[in-house]
Amino acid sequence: MSGTIYGLGLGPGDPDLMTVRADRLLRQAKHVAFFRKAGRTGQARRIVEGMIPEGASEIAMEYPVTTEIPVTDPRYNTLLSAFYAACTERLSSLATAGEDVVVLCEGDPFFYGSFMHLFTRLNGTTPVEVVPAITGMSAAWTATGQPITWGDDVLTVLMGTLPEADLVRRMGDTDALVVMKIGRNMDKVRRALHAAGRHDDAWLVEYAAMPDQRVRRLDEVDNGVAPYFSIIVVHGRGRRP
Amino acid sequence: MSGTIYGLGLGPGDPDLMTVRADRLLRQAKHVAFFRKAGRTGQARRIVEGMIPEGASEIAMEYPVTTEIPVTDPRYNTLLSAFYAACTERLSSLATAGEDVVVLCEGDPFFYGSFMHLFTRLNGTTPVEVVPAITGMSAAWTATGQPITWGDDVLTVLMGTLPEADLVRRMGDTDALVVMKIGRNMDKVRRALHAAGRHDDAWLVEYAAMPDQRVRRLDEVDNGVAPYFSIIVVHGRGRRP
Repeated sequence: MSGTIYGLGLGPGDPDLMTVRADRLLRQAKHVAFFRKAGRTGQARRIVEGMIPEGASEIAMEYPVTTEIPVTDPRYNTLLSAFYAACTERLSSLATAGEDVVVLCEGDPFFYGSFMHLFTRLNGTTPVEVVPAITGMSAAWTATGQPITWGDDVLTVLMGTLPEADLVRRMGDTDALVVMKIGRNMDKVRRALHAAGRHDDAWLVEYAAMPDQRVRRLDEVDNGVAPYFSIIVVHGRGRRP
Repeated sequence: MSGTIYGLGLGPGDPDLMTVRADRLLRQAKHVAFFRKAGRTGQARRIVEGMIPEGASEIAMEYPVTTEIPVTDPRYNTLLSAFYAACTERLSSLATAGEDVVVLCEGDPFFYGSFMHLFTRLNGTTPVEVVPAITGMSAAWTATGQPITWGDDVLTVLMGTLPEADLVRRMGDTDALVVMKIGRNMDKVRRALHAAGRHDDAWLVEYAAMPDQRVRRLDEVDNGVAPYFSIIVVHGRGRRP
């Protein structure tokens, strides 16, 4: 009997915002795997501090590269691909031996997550179950204290890694807007927001639903690099009776 | 001491996908309010069947109109506006008397929800706390068994109530796509997907994360009206090492 690999969505960061199902699966886990940058605790692992049962094995999957090589460099894809294949092999051999494995996923596993790269390699060979979770962007708009979308509003989700011209065009052609993967792209993202006429209505949420959560109007933020866990939100203004 | 009004996100429908916080707040609640169509149980109330503490008061807020009058009719806004004002008055008078009130919200309260119409009327006068939750669209893409977004994918969320030409243009100008509020707009939405060249890649998820969940490729679905709880998903195809 094969075990199951669980892609366990943890939500945005506050363990109180994990689902009842994720909380239960984690507290019964025998094997807990998670991604992290080499030498770091890892955000997913940090979220569940104190929740992993005593005696459970922890499987740290350390990225061979994060931002040291640009994603456009062919070596990036080669390194990551070999890494994900090795992780998949490691977890699926546990499952084949009849063991369930919980893989910790920040946010929602199927929304810009690393788990997807294991999932596509596992699919069809090993039982996999994905537990959805609250996205980081839901936590971000909740933190601003304003609804993100009303009535027939269009919501667009953009990555700060996109070319500046694409950002400008799309930012100007939506009601509500979420921008993720900001980090080093912060200055480009801000220029694009200005060019699209959306900068004055933008909010920057750092570490949404985490202990260091910080919410500011973007025009009160200095230029420079934003933390990795930063999300920009522009609220829609649709129909409201 | 004023009580607090909680906008309690329930998530997509499975009580096991409620957050630990929402589960706890509900099981301790003294007053539980929810919207519903007159004469119906209401979806939010149905989700929490068996979870409301004995002796808690239930406050059913019944819409004076749902789809009987088009939203473009001025009477629609007038009726809804008076309704939300009355609901707000009812809940805030409880809070003023020192009582906490839990308002049940399907999905995430700040994402196309009815709670927002209370929230804007309460804000500043009564303590309000919003508990985010898994959106219906997260449950829908999870149900398809495929990640929704990869790498730098753009995600666009559209309402089926938009004009057809807008739908066509936006459907053709995004990587990943979610369409909500389909119902009677189903045929229009399908024509738009065809015109945008996205129909072959679209999935229809009915009742995501509910007992009647049904997942089909859209090209296997007959024409006609879709259930209210239907979401169309087109997956992105971005970078994947």
